[in-house]
Amino acid sequence: MPQELFNRSEPGSRARLLITCPDRPGIIAAVTQFLLANGANILEADQHSSPSTTTFFMRIEFEQDDIARHLDSLRDAFQPVARQFRMDWRMELVHQRKRVAIFVSKELHCLTELLWQWRAGDLFADIAMVVSNHPDAQDMVRGFEIPFHHIPVTPDTKLQAEAQQLELLGGQVDLIVLARYMQILSPQFVETYPHQIINIHHSFLPSFIGKQPYERAFDRGVKLIGATAHYVTADLDAGPIIEQDVHRISHRHEVDDLKRIGRHVERTVLARAVKWHLEDRVLIHENKTVVFA
Amino acid sequence: MPQELFNRSEPGSRARLLITCPDRPGIIAAVTQFLLANGANILEADQHSSPSTTTFFMRIEFEQDDIARHLDSLRDAFQPVARQFRMDWRMELVHQRKRVAIFVSKELHCLTELLWQWRAGDLFADIAMVVSNHPDAQDMVRGFEIPFHHIPVTPDTKLQAEAQQLELLGGQVDLIVLARYMQILSPQFVETYPHQIINIHHSFLPSFIGKQPYERAFDRGVKLIGATAHYVTADLDAGPIIEQDVHRISHRHEVDDLKRIGRHVERTVLARAVKWHLEDRVLIHENKTVVFA
Amino acid sequence: MPQELFNRSEPGSRARLLITCPDRPGIIAAVTQFLLANGANILEADQHSSPSTTTFFMRIEFEQDDIARHLDSLRDAFQPVARQFRMDWRMELVHQRKRVAIFVSKELHCLTELLWQWRAGDLFADIAMVVSNHPDAQDMVRGFEIPFHHIPVTPDTKLQAEAQQLELLGGQVDLIVLARYMQILSPQFVETYPHQIINIHHSFLPSFIGKQPYERAFDRGVKLIGATAHYVTADLDAGPIIEQDVHRISHRHEVDDLKRIGRHVERTVLARAVKWHLEDRVLIHENKTVVFA
Amino acid sequence: MPQELFNRSEPGSRARLLITCPDRPGIIAAVTQFLLANGANILEADQHSSPSTTTFFMRIEFEQDDIARHLDSLRDAFQPVARQFRMDWRMELVHQRKRVAIFVSKELHCLTELLWQWRAGDLFADIAMVVSNHPDAQDMVRGFEIPFHHIPVTPDTKLQAEAQQLELLGGQVDLIVLARYMQILSPQFVETYPHQIINIHHSFLPSFIGKQPYERAFDRGVKLIGATAHYVTADLDAGPIIEQDVHRISHRHEVDDLKRIGRHVERTVLARAVKWHLEDRVLIHENKTVVFA
Repeated sequence: MPQELFNRSEPGSRARLLITCPDRPGIIAAVTQFLLANGANILEADQHSSPSTTTFFMRIEFEQDDIARHLDSLRDAFQPVARQFRMDWRMELVHQRKRVAIFVSKELHCLTELLWQWRAGDLFADIAMVVSNHPDAQDMVRGFEIPFHHIPVTPDTKLQAEAQQLELLGGQVDLIVLARYMQILSPQFVETYPHQIINIHHSFLPSFIGKQPYERAFDRGVKLIGATAHYVTADLDAGPIIEQDVHRISHRHEVDDLKRIGRHVERTVLARAVKWHLEDRVLIHENKTVVFA
Repeated sequence: MPQELFNRSEPGSRARLLITCPDRPGIIAAVTQFLLANGANILEADQHSSPSTTTFFMRIEFEQDDIARHLDSLRDAFQPVARQFRMDWRMELVHQRKRVAIFVSKELHCLTELLWQWRAGDLFADIAMVVSNHPDAQDMVRGFEIPFHHIPVTPDTKLQAEAQQLELLGGQVDLIVLARYMQILSPQFVETYPHQIINIHHSFLPSFIGKQPYERAFDRGVKLIGATAHYVTADLDAGPIIEQDVHRISHRHEVDDLKRIGRHVERTVLARAVKWHLEDRVLIHENKTVVFA
Repeated sequence: MPQELFNRSEPGSRARLLITCPDRPGIIAAVTQFLLANGANILEADQHSSPSTTTFFMRIEFEQDDIARHLDSLRDAFQPVARQFRMDWRMELVHQRKRVAIFVSKELHCLTELLWQWRAGDLFADIAMVVSNHPDAQDMVRGFEIPFHHIPVTPDTKLQAEAQQLELLGGQVDLIVLARYMQILSPQFVETYPHQIINIHHSFLPSFIGKQPYERAFDRGVKLIGATAHYVTADLDAGPIIEQDVHRISHRHEVDDLKRIGRHVERTVLARAVKWHLEDRVLIHENKTVVFA
Repeated sequence: MPQELFNRSEPGSRARLLITCPDRPGIIAAVTQFLLANGANILEADQHSSPSTTTFFMRIEFEQDDIARHLDSLRDAFQPVARQFRMDWRMELVHQRKRVAIFVSKELHCLTELLWQWRAGDLFADIAMVVSNHPDAQDMVRGFEIPFHHIPVTPDTKLQAEAQQLELLGGQVDLIVLARYMQILSPQFVETYPHQIINIHHSFLPSFIGKQPYERAFDRGVKLIGATAHYVTADLDAGPIIEQDVHRISHRHEVDDLKRIGRHVERTVLARAVKWHLEDRVLIHENKTVVFA
């Protein structure tokens, strides 16, 4: 459904309801009946149930007069429905911008894409800060009037650097985007932000997990190169995939060409994944995603 | 949602409900409540409402014990809901195969693709007949044990030929596929099967309406060629588009190369459109389609 | 072939030879023999001859010690070969950056993409200036330390504005890029820079020539939207096409979504066309292009 | 360049020259001078040299009156040039159809695609036989008037079955296509036809090497599925890749949907690779391919 709903009219009167629960008859009827009875008008509704998981997923975007004031009572009212169907659920205001931190190293194409889409209004969020282990991005980031923090990382200072990062984040961000941040986060860090960290890997996963994927793609002689945006988990490059895309290459392309072409795929894929996350279009189940794009 | 539902289990207990109506609050709640109350379990549900049309579209696939026997009474029971929301609607058994006639001339790639997908079980239909103004397809069609009718068409005998075709069809087919049938049907013919005739046009419409699209694409020097599957209306190549796709070409390709590459695009696009139509995934509104693929 | 040759080593010793001539036996042998005899080593060679045009096209990239000093004498030496085969030809240093002017109006996504690719080293050129009929781009352009000229255009002042633009350009630029410049240039202006002006049109030409292509694409209900980079000629949107691409849309997308998605296609397509032009990969013949990408 | 050259005119007067040799100045000049001096007219010429391999690759298609009669003497005349540049080379008549054997098991979509493209004239070859470990394809293959051999394979009889296959092939085929032949050939068999066996693997290699790639793709939650055509070597699924392509999937697709969608990708990718091989467009170097498509 239209992805720009918040641009249309009065986003202030809109909210989203996200549901994951065991599949059984009557869920849609119960939820839509609840919304109707509470004066909410459905704008978008997507649901999915997979015979292989027997799990039901739903995303509803609805409008209600003065929803911001009534949200807490609407949540309370929904509790019995949620309990009846054993739902894992949340209800959020559409106009509530998520707070985002972007981590970056020396390659800035993904960061640049995110900042430009954000400025163009395509990414609805507050960019709380950009954090980097190198100073390269500083001027650009400050040009966007976004706080920039340079926290160098060496093998010896890694945990210390992470402690510094965690303090900066202060539990106040909803999403961390690793926009070609060339450091592996510790399991402790990852656990602090479960399913709230999105990484862009510069290969078509599960091909070329780990380091130097373009060099390895070149050596293998593949005819397409790709990029993968995924949630970060304790397993390297093995978290739930949100989005992937590829671009055709040929024998004419050397490793440097792969990197150049790959940069375009990476930034496109990452920006799409971040947009979907910001609009609550991604539901995670086990190690996979349901994306209501 | 999974497009192969009918393959999974007991398609005999499944039905589909298709709805188009003015958009207003409460439609989803009313429909899903109705189904729940009647013991039907929703397997797939898609809906769409567009701010630019204020029209609501819905497709639900559901299962109910012994639905084939109860379908008429379920339809009766739904009448009040339909009236309340001024719905244009229909309810169909999933296991009820649509009857299809395929019209073809001398180029057989689209026909071949449809027959092979049909035999592979990807197209759920009865192929009632193949009709052609040339005898070329006869052997192949009979190899599939499908009736073949050779009805030559000349400028002078066109109306007579159409009368013959209409008699053969006998009002007994649900869909006519023009699989590179190089004749323009008369308005009278088209009106007899409104929104039941799908044509494949060998260009990316609205580019190159009419004759010799590949020659004109070559002359214009386009870098992609395409194909378009659309419902046939009285206006040539102007009916509602169901599906389109393109393929990259270059200066290396002559007109004959465009035709060869184009054949692959044409058959892919047409087969996709026919599949969606057969599974009731296409809703028409004014001159556009909503495709719940 | 690798598009980054100039990055590899000593671009200062490289040159390109571009040839268009009537097709006949012996051209490749004569040209390569000439280069060998003159101590030039071929790095890339592409040629094309089309049975439908009987015209031969060739692009060679070669290296020779100290080519910058010897280029004039090499050109002189090539004259007899060129005459023998009635060649339309040119020989250029690879390290000679082309001078580019970018024209823009209020939408800045194409300009932004060009400037970022340029800064990343993907576009090998000097950006001589950015010219706009609106002031919106000024801050960004100056942030890149590129001269910005605001020249308002009204129906009454159009010719005057063009005179001002032509004076600024001063015959000193090799390429003018219309990066969503929403004014139609006069035939006089276009003639001053024949095949040196690249425009991005926001549709898949020849569909939706002229104004408001996204609105018309929406009304027609197409399933893919596209963009086209082409050389500007006196005929609106009818010049030689350099590159095109498309993106899938659905009934879920309103006109604003088409514009948002289209912006990504536009900037990608334009940047690719500009890159190929800068690397002398585009040869024009009649109203079509040969692109040795 | 146009891939249908043999259709144009007098393919009987055409030949191809394929060259791989160490890169150094003068190769193109020497080869084209040789052809000119011998009255041969170049129709297509492609060459490639990679800085990372310092190897030169060339494919030339040329015409010469009565080439079939003169080919042996032309080959003799070329020997000194070949020696001078230490070329690995071959010269072949374009109108000399390659002899192809197709191996298949129970899934027939790849075989069907190859046979239909062959009948349509898109694949220029003699199909010498179809070999299968199951009888399923027999009727279809005989309908095309192609010899069919049913050779069952069990773990115990595998070497015996291979001996039988090798006897049938009799060293008389130029290419073996594994069109979803679900048996792993022994190293001895593979060595008998080096770089003459093309396999289609139903994943985007190097992802999902080995068995059940669709099941594993589903479990990993990838967003695109692919297929890979490659030459068979002793290492399972690790030979030189000729062609790959992908198709988008989503959470809506179960394993069976992946298989259905995958079938379309597989047959397209395999047919493209076979066509290129038949037209001598694929040069192998170490474990990679140069494809002059």
